[in-house]
Amino acid sequence: MISVHLESGRVSVRRQPLPRVPLGFARIRLLAAGICSTDLELQRGYYGFSGTPGHEFVGEVVTIADGADNAKWIGHRVAGEINLACGHCEWCARGLGRHCPTRTVLGIVKHPGAFREFLTLPTRNLHRVPDSMSTEQAVFIEPVAAACEILDQVKIPKGDRVALLGDGKLGLLVAQVLQAQGARVHLFGRHHQKMRIVEKAGVTTELLPKKLPVRAYRWVVDATGSPEGLPAAVTMCEPRGTIIMKSTVHGLVTVDTAPVIVNEVTLVGSRCGRFEPAIRLLASHKLDVAPMISDEFPLDRAPKAFAQAATKGVLKVLLLPAG
Amino acid sequence: MISVHLESGRVSVRRQPLPRVPLGFARIRLLAAGICSTDLELQRGYYGFSGTPGHEFVGEVVTIADGADNAKWIGHRVAGEINLACGHCEWCARGLGRHCPTRTVLGIVKHPGAFREFLTLPTRNLHRVPDSMSTEQAVFIEPVAAACEILDQVKIPKGDRVALLGDGKLGLLVAQVLQAQGARVHLFGRHHQKMRIVEKAGVTTELLPKKLPVRAYRWVVDATGSPEGLPAAVTMCEPRGTIIMKSTVHGLVTVDTAPVIVNEVTLVGSRCGRFEPAIRLLASHKLDVAPMISDEFPLDRAPKAFAQAATKGVLKVLLLPAG
Repeated sequence: MISVHLESGRVSVRRQPLPRVPLGFARIRLLAAGICSTDLELQRGYYGFSGTPGHEFVGEVVTIADGADNAKWIGHRVAGEINLACGHCEWCARGLGRHCPTRTVLGIVKHPGAFREFLTLPTRNLHRVPDSMSTEQAVFIEPVAAACEILDQVKIPKGDRVALLGDGKLGLLVAQVLQAQGARVHLFGRHHQKMRIVEKAGVTTELLPKKLPVRAYRWVVDATGSPEGLPAAVTMCEPRGTIIMKSTVHGLVTVDTAPVIVNEVTLVGSRCGRFEPAIRLLASHKLDVAPMISDEFPLDRAPKAFAQAATKGVLKVLLLPAG
Repeated sequence: MISVHLESGRVSVRRQPLPRVPLGFARIRLLAAGICSTDLELQRGYYGFSGTPGHEFVGEVVTIADGADNAKWIGHRVAGEINLACGHCEWCARGLGRHCPTRTVLGIVKHPGAFREFLTLPTRNLHRVPDSMSTEQAVFIEPVAAACEILDQVKIPKGDRVALLGDGKLGLLVAQVLQAQGARVHLFGRHHQKMRIVEKAGVTTELLPKKLPVRAYRWVVDATGSPEGLPAAVTMCEPRGTIIMKSTVHGLVTVDTAPVIVNEVTLVGSRCGRFEPAIRLLASHKLDVAPMISDEFPLDRAPKAFAQAATKGVLKVLLLPAG
C-alpha cells in the first residue's frame, strides 16, 4: 500500500505492507485525510518527528481483530480519536485518556498516521460518521473537536464578546464553533478572503491592526499558530480575563508576564477535544466547512500537497486515496 | 518631614512638606513599612518609576479631611489597600477596584508611597489593625493579602499537594497561607535557613534540584521572582494542572508554550488581594512572620536599607520613622 513518510523535513511516498491489526484494533481504509498545521510543524521539526504523519481522517473499517464487533464496524465510515491511551492508568480512569502519560498519538507520537491507504486504531477510538454527513465534512471532525475543547474548558456566557486571533484553519473553525454556541466572535486576521468564510455565520472580522486594542476583551483566543500570538493576546485581554492558547508553536515564545500578573489574566492551554460534540455540531449543519477546502491531492502526490498546504492563503488541503 | 526618593535606580532621602489631605483622605503617620521585591524591581526600572516608593505599611491616622469620621480613625493603627480606585467605573462597581483602569497605586503608580513620615490614602482603603496584633506583624498584612489572593482565584482541595517555587519573602508567606488552608505545600528553594521558617508550619522543603520533577504536581506556584520560574513551573505541572504566577519580573520571559498546550495547563496571574482574609489569618496567629524580619532601619538610612534588602539571603527589611 502507499504510505507518506516524513523525515528531516522531507515528505516522500513509500510502498509498505498492510499494517497488522492487534487485538482491540481495526484496520481502516482511508477515504480522505486533512493536512493540519501541526503536520507542517512536524515537518519543521516539532517533536523530532519521523514516520507517517496524519491525524485528521475519515475511513472505512475493513478488518477488526475481534470478530464479535464486526457488524458494528465493518463497512462503516469512521473518524477516530487520535490519542491511543493505555486504558488503565489514573488519567484513563478519569476519562482523560487524551492525557494518559504512556499514550501514543496517531501520526504524532509513536503510532503511524493516517496519510496511508490503510491505517489502524483501537475500535474504542472510533466514531461512526452519520450517513447525513459527507466524507469531506467528516474530515473536519478532529479539528472541530479541537475547537470544541474550548467549550469543555471554559464557560463563555452567551452574548459575551470574544476576540479571536488568527484566520487559519483552526481559527476559522473556532470562530464558527464559538459563534454557534452564542458568543459574539470578532476575528482579527490577515486575509479578507479567508475571513469572509465565517462572516456568513455572523462573525465580525477585521484585519489585525498595527495598534492592538488594549485590555479590550474578556475572552481572547490565540489561534495564530505564531509566537507573536500570545503577546498580542496578553495586550488585548482585559483584567481578570481569559486567554485560550490554541497555537501549537515549535520553539520558544517570549512574552512580558507583568501584564498577565498585574491584570490577573488566566491562560488556558487547549489541545484535542472529545469527538461527540464535534460530530453533533457538524451534523447540525451549523458549521460551513466546505469553503475551507482549498485543494485535494492523491496520496502519491503528498510532497506537492504539503508544499501547497504551507502556501500563504491556502486553507485545508485533503489527501485522498490514489486512483 | 523625611521622605525616601527613588529615581533612575538611586535611593535618596529628602525633606518635604507634609502631604495635603484631599476630601475622603486620611493623613497617616508611619509606624513601620516593609521593603518588598516589587520595590527592588522598581529600583531596577520596572514601570519607569520615579518618586517615593513603599506600599507595605502600618501607620496611625492623624488627620482626616471629613471630620465626621474622626472617632472611627484618629489615633488608630491602620494598614491600607494600595490601589486608589475611581469608585464609579464598571470595575469598581464589580468590587474590583484593584483593577480600576484609572487607579493610582500607593508607591507604584502616581501616588507617593509609604516610605515617608506621613502618607495619605483614602479612608475607604484603610483597615484597622486589631489591638492583639503587633505593628511588626501588621506590616505583613499587605503581602499576606497578596498570598491570600490565590485563595480567591482557585479552589485547592484540602490535602492536595502544591509545589511552591521560591523561598523569598512572598514564597514563605504563600507557603504558610496555603498550608494553613489545608494544602500540603512542598517548597523548592535555595536557602535552608529561609525554608526552615515554614517547616514549623508543616511545609516540606527541598533545595531546587537540577533535574526538576516532570509533570508531577497538579498545583504549582511560581514565587521565584525570576524569569526562570515560569519555565520550571511548566515542566513540573501535570496535565490539566494549574500554575499560579506570583513572580513580578521586569522584562521578558521566554517559555516553551508547547507543553502548556499539549498538557492543557492553566496559568493564573495573581497580584494583590483583599485585606480582610489576611488580617483574619494574621490575627489567628497561624502565620509566623516575626522570623522573616531580617533588619530594621530608620527612614533616613533608606539607601542602606535598600542595599540590605537586595542582599542574597536577606528577607524582610523594615523602615521605621527616624528618631
